[in-house]
Amino acid sequence: MSALARLLRPQSVAIIGASADVTKTTGRPVGYLQRHGYAGAIWPVNPRAADLNGLRCYPDVASLPAAPDVGLVLLGAERAEGAVRDLAARGCAAAIVLAGGFAEAGGDGGARQARLREAAGAMRLLGPNTIGLVNLTDRIVLSASGALEMETAAGGVSLVSQSGGILGAVLSRGAARGIGFAKLLATGNEADLDIADVMDLLAEDEETRVIALYIEGLRRPDAFRAASRKAAKAGKRIVAYKVGRSEAGAQAAISHTGALSGTDRMHDALFRQLGVLRADRFSDLLDLSAALATGRVLRGRRVAVLTSTGGAGALLADAFGLAGFALPPPDEATAARLAALTGEAAVANPLDLTLAGLKPEVMQGSIAALLESDAYDALAVVVGSSALAQPRLAADAIAAGQSLNDKPLLAYLSPHAPAIGAALQAQGIPAVSEPEAAAAMLSALAAPAPRILPPAPPQPLSLPSGPLDEVESKALFARFGVTPVREVACATPDQAAAAAAHIGEPVVLKALSRHLAHKSDVGGVRLGVPPDQVAAEGAAMLARVEAATGQAPEGLLVQERVRGIEMILGLQRDPMLGTALLLGMGGVATELFGDTALRLLPVDRAEVEAMLAELRGAALLRGHRGAPPCDVEALIEAALGFARLGEVLGDRLVTAEINPLFVMPQGGGVRAADGLAVLA
Amino acid sequence: MSALARLLRPQSVAIIGASADVTKTTGRPVGYLQRHGYAGAIWPVNPRAADLNGLRCYPDVASLPAAPDVGLVLLGAERAEGAVRDLAARGCAAAIVLAGGFAEAGGDGGARQARLREAAGAMRLLGPNTIGLVNLTDRIVLSASGALEMETAAGGVSLVSQSGGILGAVLSRGAARGIGFAKLLATGNEADLDIADVMDLLAEDEETRVIALYIEGLRRPDAFRAASRKAAKAGKRIVAYKVGRSEAGAQAAISHTGALSGTDRMHDALFRQLGVLRADRFSDLLDLSAALATGRVLRGRRVAVLTSTGGAGALLADAFGLAGFALPPPDEATAARLAALTGEAAVANPLDLTLAGLKPEVMQGSIAALLESDAYDALAVVVGSSALAQPRLAADAIAAGQSLNDKPLLAYLSPHAPAIGAALQAQGIPAVSEPEAAAAMLSALAAPAPRILPPAPPQPLSLPSGPLDEVESKALFARFGVTPVREVACATPDQAAAAAAHIGEPVVLKALSRHLAHKSDVGGVRLGVPPDQVAAEGAAMLARVEAATGQAPEGLLVQERVRGIEMILGLQRDPMLGTALLLGMGGVATELFGDTALRLLPVDRAEVEAMLAELRGAALLRGHRGAPPCDVEALIEAALGFARLGEVLGDRLVTAEINPLFVMPQGGGVRAADGLAVLA
Repeated sequence: MSALARLLRPQSVAIIGASADVTKTTGRPVGYLQRHGYAGAIWPVNPRAADLNGLRCYPDVASLPAAPDVGLVLLGAERAEGAVRDLAARGCAAAIVLAGGFAEAGGDGGARQARLREAAGAMRLLGPNTIGLVNLTDRIVLSASGALEMETAAGGVSLVSQSGGILGAVLSRGAARGIGFAKLLATGNEADLDIADVMDLLAEDEETRVIALYIEGLRRPDAFRAASRKAAKAGKRIVAYKVGRSEAGAQAAISHTGALSGTDRMHDALFRQLGVLRADRFSDLLDLSAALATGRVLRGRRVAVLTSTGGAGALLADAFGLAGFALPPPDEATAARLAALTGEAAVANPLDLTLAGLKPEVMQGSIAALLESDAYDALAVVVGSSALAQPRLAADAIAAGQSLNDKPLLAYLSPHAPAIGAALQAQGIPAVSEPEAAAAMLSALAAPAPRILPPAPPQPLSLPSGPLDEVESKALFARFGVTPVREVACATPDQAAAAAAHIGEPVVLKALSRHLAHKSDVGGVRLGVPPDQVAAEGAAMLARVEAATGQAPEGLLVQERVRGIEMILGLQRDPMLGTALLLGMGGVATELFGDTALRLLPVDRAEVEAMLAELRGAALLRGHRGAPPCDVEALIEAALGFARLGEVLGDRLVTAEINPLFVMPQGGGVRAADGLAVLA
Repeated sequence: MSALARLLRPQSVAIIGASADVTKTTGRPVGYLQRHGYAGAIWPVNPRAADLNGLRCYPDVASLPAAPDVGLVLLGAERAEGAVRDLAARGCAAAIVLAGGFAEAGGDGGARQARLREAAGAMRLLGPNTIGLVNLTDRIVLSASGALEMETAAGGVSLVSQSGGILGAVLSRGAARGIGFAKLLATGNEADLDIADVMDLLAEDEETRVIALYIEGLRRPDAFRAASRKAAKAGKRIVAYKVGRSEAGAQAAISHTGALSGTDRMHDALFRQLGVLRADRFSDLLDLSAALATGRVLRGRRVAVLTSTGGAGALLADAFGLAGFALPPPDEATAARLAALTGEAAVANPLDLTLAGLKPEVMQGSIAALLESDAYDALAVVVGSSALAQPRLAADAIAAGQSLNDKPLLAYLSPHAPAIGAALQAQGIPAVSEPEAAAAMLSALAAPAPRILPPAPPQPLSLPSGPLDEVESKALFARFGVTPVREVACATPDQAAAAAAHIGEPVVLKALSRHLAHKSDVGGVRLGVPPDQVAAEGAAMLARVEAATGQAPEGLLVQERVRGIEMILGLQRDPMLGTALLLGMGGVATELFGDTALRLLPVDRAEVEAMLAELRGAALLRGHRGAPPCDVEALIEAALGFARLGEVLGDRLVTAEINPLFVMPQGGGVRAADGLAVLA
């Protein structure tokens, strides 16, 4: 067994600083282990006691009978380091340090944490500043917190949290609802073991069906990627709640693209591309986990609602409709089966049993008819006020339905009915009190299995550092298949005039400078300049830009005018998460409506197609209002080429952007009309 | 006392069809009244019993000792009509009919309901298909449903529901959380009394501070408007949850109560303009009501968070940030006060008391310091797992803070802690378990008092029926101050050529026809036609449109080309809710991004300005990326003029639209480039 596996299922636990006084926090862990029938060895370590709760107590770590699998350190921040050093020396597999007062406390806490980490050496370390772990499968509590000490059913949801408080909160909420957990771990300050390590461990855990994550920040995104991939391969689903969505906008941006993406959006992309379902609301973390733990999969979008109270049926129907589900009426065969059961000629969806009466056989028969109907992919059953008087009626009928087939089946509790909900949940039927939660659950069950792309191998590329000018940038992009507009870089206004005369129609005239990220702000761009005015306008532009920036542009750029649908392509680098590709509608649509899609690299054709499908403005590409359809194929190729550039550049990329990229009518390709790249 | 006031506080209740068998539904109402100490007269009516629960039983309504204030009819659908007729004849003020099987059942239920209504005559009628009402202030239950029979605290929230099931569900959820109610009424099928009647009644109810509504469809929007205005004047706040945001939900609502519903967006506008807070999620109905019942008002956007668990503090901060609140660090004075209390030099927001220890004086002192700080407008306090062991610590400290001043103060329960939440709520402190709910509550407390405009008086206008052609439409709009582009209606291509020559530059050429709503779809619009090509293009266009539509256009329209920011102005008529003004960004922004704002008439300048502020594309009007600012003043005037047209037309309006309306640079006014009006 690996050190981590021994952490989850220790044969022996040394408890450093255990107290015989159960009213003290340090008196709890031994009692927790004993109370839940821990079968391994418990070795309290306390120099001031000979025995403790009927167990022999050891004066120090050195005198333990053997190397423990786990050392649970209950000492304060000052003394924890010595205990960890002793445990490591004794050959302990993993230590858990509960104390706070390390990196999270600021001041010299960071240095203290570094010493703790160093003292652990090859021994693995959970914490510090953690409330520990609970293995509910094997009934092992390694914690001093009452928040983790409760009668909770074992089940398929494992929870990993960077906050101990949240671990306890989610456990208590889940326990109240009858949701069964497998393993719960708080990683705390992550001096050694982090959230990715624990995910990797849980990916091998048989009892874990769903890994639920509470994330404040990912320290090792690549390890997170690898662990997600491993979990997916093992058939486990992952749900993550990540805080920090409201700070997304605060990120400073060099270029336009930066302002549009930002770290939280990058996390969205990361989760999506790893098949990690992001919990939108905090309550979704538990709700989606409970739904996914059923192992059921939603194979279509047609939902039946069975109710004994019209209002609740309408609430559910509305929530499902808003989430994109359909509530078709029953097909002929199902309608006939229901009519025979209920004695009512009119059967609808939601199906309201109020008038038919709440007889068990009607309830059970209706559930069977709807679940077995070819017209529906899932069934939601309302538990109404009538169930308060007869709690078993609805619960038993729903539970019986569960064995009919593997379609998703869930319960909505209309009145406050926690006992009925817990009873249903204990039988494997997700039960919720919010209509929106029911819809979110079905959406989670409809999510496709993740399609995780392998990371791209690095490729060498010889390029200078710093900003490239527009011509150099577009030349770089052209090497990756993105065609620029026809253009001529000119040293003087006269050369520019000659180039414009060669083009023979009004041109785009720009100042050319590697130090100018926003040319138009300083009068460095003029559209539609007739060739005979280029010389004069060019001279004026050079003077204008120099006056505005204090630096003479290197020259002028003469470009053909292009008409097509304006898009934007960008590469954005996040120091933690890597490079992302941004694809969006250009111009006003990007700036005012933020109509862009973002994915972390690598991306493939299917991913780029999914990005395009996300853009509301993409209708323009398909030929809006009689306009000819555009060369979408060329756009996809350009995006893939730009993504390849991002992969090749790796961490040399600072930013790269094409804005606008014109997409021409079908067969016409694309044209990069402006571009900027900054390399490290 | 009015008949309705007597319904809420009857001096006498006749219970028609009361049974002595308390296991029967019809046996319950007498017991409910007795158990809660009803002080008025209870008159059971049942020809087969002499007495009932110690009360004298009457054989029929005619033999009652006096005219009852309320007749509670427990009979089935068939026999209810007779009872209602008898009650009306006896001079009863109001009857409540619980039975279903009327309009909601379809078939001949509608006719049965009409007969019931007719039988009531001048007597007021609640129901049918209702579960009745509860007056918690005076402890009067008029219902046969166990869902309304529970030990609930009296308080300031009154609930009106078109669904009995929802009434019971919200009551039970609120009761579990310690939320106090004043009056609860289910209006059911609304054969007589509807939601607006009950709102009007509650506007006069002293104990009611908040009116919470569950709406499936408004039968009398004008009465709803009037009742909302009356409630606002009386200082009551209104929160509404309305189903029907999705097609599926709207269908379910229609089939449930048979109420017609206008479009959901129109309802949004209606609620907003009446100061009715719309609950976004179902749970918001209770949460926002509980917050508003405190009577506290949020005067700024700066929120302090106090926590004993870092994770929950982060969750709350994130939710507040997403909702647009700021979490500034404490100012110098507050920081000093906190540092003195906690012994920690570093104080932040969220303020985490973990390291300072959870001593009562620290907790209470911190709450006082934050509430009394000039840096904050509100305080949210996290109740962490530690509170489970010492429930009073947090609860007492928070409750003590309540009396310091009138800033909003709320509690967030991190673990499952219903008892602590209920204890807090009972002391008037809203307590929630979802971070998003805390943010929604603060947003509700920040909502300004409603500014309800009086309805506009109708004005006569002589106009033909049916569709107007483009020129006629724009001439009508011009009478209300919306300037059209310069244009000439021409009978022949030659006339059009002459008109174009007069304009002297490329023109817009259109087919003119009152039967052609979408000219461009049939080749009836050409932009930028040089004057010398107008004759040929005009002839071709007439032939093209006739070939496509089978009808010869009446002529051609020659227009100047205009450049400006494209907007859309529209008037939409909802058969239930009236006329709405639509203002949006034109062209692609409307079609693909739906960047439009909608308000029901009447609107004033402030409302139009608010509409403009809603448009993401409005940045274009202010002079985006160096472009000159546009004539926003003229746009506002045009919108107000268009709205006046809508008021004048009243129900003669079918539809009216200007698309595009060009807004010129400042001082340049607006130009309606295309327009359509259809009148009934």
